[in-house]
Amino acid sequence: MAIINSQFLKTVSDEIQSQIDKRINQFTAVNRDVKLIRLNNDDVVRPLAPCVMKAMTGAITEMGDEATFKGRGPIEGYPFLIEAIIKHNLKSHKVKIDSNEVFINNGAKEDLASIGDILCHDNRIAVMDPVLQDYIDSNVVNNRAGDMNEKRQWSHLIYLDCKKEKDFMPKFPKIRFDIVYLSYPNNPTGCVMTREALEKWVQYAIENDVLILFDATYKSFISEPDIPQSIYEIKGSKKVAIEFCSFSKNAGFTGLHCGYTIIPKAITGYSFRVDKSVDLNSLWRRWQMIKNYAPSYVIQKGAEELFSNEGLNWVAENVKYYMSNAAILRQALTEAQLKFWGGVNSPYIWVESPYGSSMKLFDKLLNDCYILSSPGERFGPRGKGFVRLSSFANQTKVMIAGTRIADLKSLKK
Amino acid sequence: MAIINSQFLKTVSDEIQSQIDKRINQFTAVNRDVKLIRLNNDDVVRPLAPCVMKAMTGAITEMGDEATFKGRGPIEGYPFLIEAIIKHNLKSHKVKIDSNEVFINNGAKEDLASIGDILCHDNRIAVMDPVLQDYIDSNVVNNRAGDMNEKRQWSHLIYLDCKKEKDFMPKFPKIRFDIVYLSYPNNPTGCVMTREALEKWVQYAIENDVLILFDATYKSFISEPDIPQSIYEIKGSKKVAIEFCSFSKNAGFTGLHCGYTIIPKAITGYSFRVDKSVDLNSLWRRWQMIKNYAPSYVIQKGAEELFSNEGLNWVAENVKYYMSNAAILRQALTEAQLKFWGGVNSPYIWVESPYGSSMKLFDKLLNDCYILSSPGERFGPRGKGFVRLSSFANQTKVMIAGTRIADLKSLKK
Repeated sequence: MAIINSQFLKTVSDEIQSQIDKRINQFTAVNRDVKLIRLNNDDVVRPLAPCVMKAMTGAITEMGDEATFKGRGPIEGYPFLIEAIIKHNLKSHKVKIDSNEVFINNGAKEDLASIGDILCHDNRIAVMDPVLQDYIDSNVVNNRAGDMNEKRQWSHLIYLDCKKEKDFMPKFPKIRFDIVYLSYPNNPTGCVMTREALEKWVQYAIENDVLILFDATYKSFISEPDIPQSIYEIKGSKKVAIEFCSFSKNAGFTGLHCGYTIIPKAITGYSFRVDKSVDLNSLWRRWQMIKNYAPSYVIQKGAEELFSNEGLNWVAENVKYYMSNAAILRQALTEAQLKFWGGVNSPYIWVESPYGSSMKLFDKLLNDCYILSSPGERFGPRGKGFVRLSSFANQTKVMIAGTRIADLKSLKK
Repeated sequence: MAIINSQFLKTVSDEIQSQIDKRINQFTAVNRDVKLIRLNNDDVVRPLAPCVMKAMTGAITEMGDEATFKGRGPIEGYPFLIEAIIKHNLKSHKVKIDSNEVFINNGAKEDLASIGDILCHDNRIAVMDPVLQDYIDSNVVNNRAGDMNEKRQWSHLIYLDCKKEKDFMPKFPKIRFDIVYLSYPNNPTGCVMTREALEKWVQYAIENDVLILFDATYKSFISEPDIPQSIYEIKGSKKVAIEFCSFSKNAGFTGLHCGYTIIPKAITGYSFRVDKSVDLNSLWRRWQMIKNYAPSYVIQKGAEELFSNEGLNWVAENVKYYMSNAAILRQALTEAQLKFWGGVNSPYIWVESPYGSSMKLFDKLLNDCYILSSPGERFGPRGKGFVRLSSFANQTKVMIAGTRIADLKSLKK
């Protein structure tokens, strides 16, 4: 009989999600007419840009004619999209990336979850804490996480202490590690890294031979000018960092799945088999060849338009819309005298529960404000005591939600 | 320093492809005006169906309006497409599949290459020989193939003898194994399995606890009524077989990437961790959650139309077109007195080289007929002595190619 990869059985069931669902069901059972406002979204609500739609429709028309039909495309993505990204990237971040360093992805999630396939299972992995579950799960199934202990932490992972007193900036750990996930703007805390802090991390990575997996999914939401949008703005980073980018949130591509991953040619990993360093860019190209396709021509043509003037404006409008939502929520939270982080350079706001318990604040928001939030435990044990609010929602609803939050009375017991 | 998964370094470089490229370059250097006819295609040339284009364009319009915008879809694919597949599958193969047994994939290749992720690395794998390189590579990187020996075979794989005298039907090996890849209609040989032969394989799998990974990518090309199109036409197969299907070839979806994988709930694998059997359907659902997305809404809406009357007719026309190409080539090969297999239930034709050497026949076709073919070595050592011709080409060109092949003189030295 085929033997399964038992690591899959370790991936955490949806214990927390069940708790949430139970509470929602209880609520709706007695409040049948109440429409809940979902501020627990990882998904967007704003539609596609007209120029993107036009380009996609045009691409479909091309595919309806034998003369212009497109079959399989290049495994790393079409040059037209890679060039558009490079041109824009260069312009906005003053970073020089070569075209063979860019891989069009099917959304950052897939590449973030799969990059570990080209890495050995016994690398030591460090993650921030609180942490996006995605980073954990892919390492669990690749047998890199060990077992979960009674604190709900994984035995082989190194958790970087991210304290509220330090705005959730990760501390350098005392233990050596090989790979670290950094995610800025951060999901769930909404915090960003200053240039100085990121410089320190790059320096640390260079000195300690650490590979940084930099999740830049939310970079478009950065509003403060001195916050780096790309890790490649930091000198030396092209030797140590892989960056994952996505069009999902800023361009409304969650339903299309497209983004890009940058793997500089200078980044290497060690192979015991050949007893030397090997560049990860080539390995990833092999991974693509064996396991994956870049997104379809139709979607890549749509994504190309995001770098046209119309597309850039649309993305800017999207960002403005969601960040106005964030501003509404921040204002309301301030009025309610709740302590929070994020919402300035990020669509997420991380709210401290005045009760200590996440679930108590979750319940308060549900029962008094008819708002769905994400309890911090969704992001690991250190998420306890917080809830995350998302700005990915319709603005009219966010305004109503804001009024209700601001009106919250007797928050402290 | 991060340690790489050195298994990636074992995946075979394109040694054979380099040989092919070298020959083509030599040819074109002295024959600048000659236009080569590509009969080495794995990719299609016929355009998308108008009804598919219309559905995709409609889906894009939906995504341009906040009221009808679609973000992330269900991880296993949209119910509308799954239902269309089940309804059609049931009708055409008289097979009952439940909706939770179907996963919409991004083309069969990705799922075929990734299914091994949920299986332990020490399963013994059997492959047919000649074999599609894709099956090998994904097992190499998952550390299941061992090392390549001097015969260019992998030490831990079990190669099933597929002899020309037996129409390339695989022999049951004497060694025990856990998992077998079967691919029918076969790429590259173009052969199919009779109902009786497939029944024997299913019986063998049941008796020996073997998991069958059944690649049915080319099932639409089957023309003979008594050949099973789906392994689920065979009694008992739902306990032992996973089937991989694709819209790539019959519907011109190579540039869109969509198909479906069927994992019956009854299929289990053993877990040493929990000391019992676990159903693979649930494991694959976790894999999807952690690593993948189903294709975009736009593409799934297009795929749904393949099961409308117009879509079914278009697919039938596509198949007819490519199979007419196959008939032209078969006629020409017969006239040239070349021995071949396939081309009746498959778009591929497997031609025996009268010289013994694949490369000699490749050269003959290149130099005398201006035709590009695929030397059999692309499909492992047992492909030696054969070339594969593909019917995925424009018919006018195939006719010219046919005339040239039929005219071949002095084939034997």
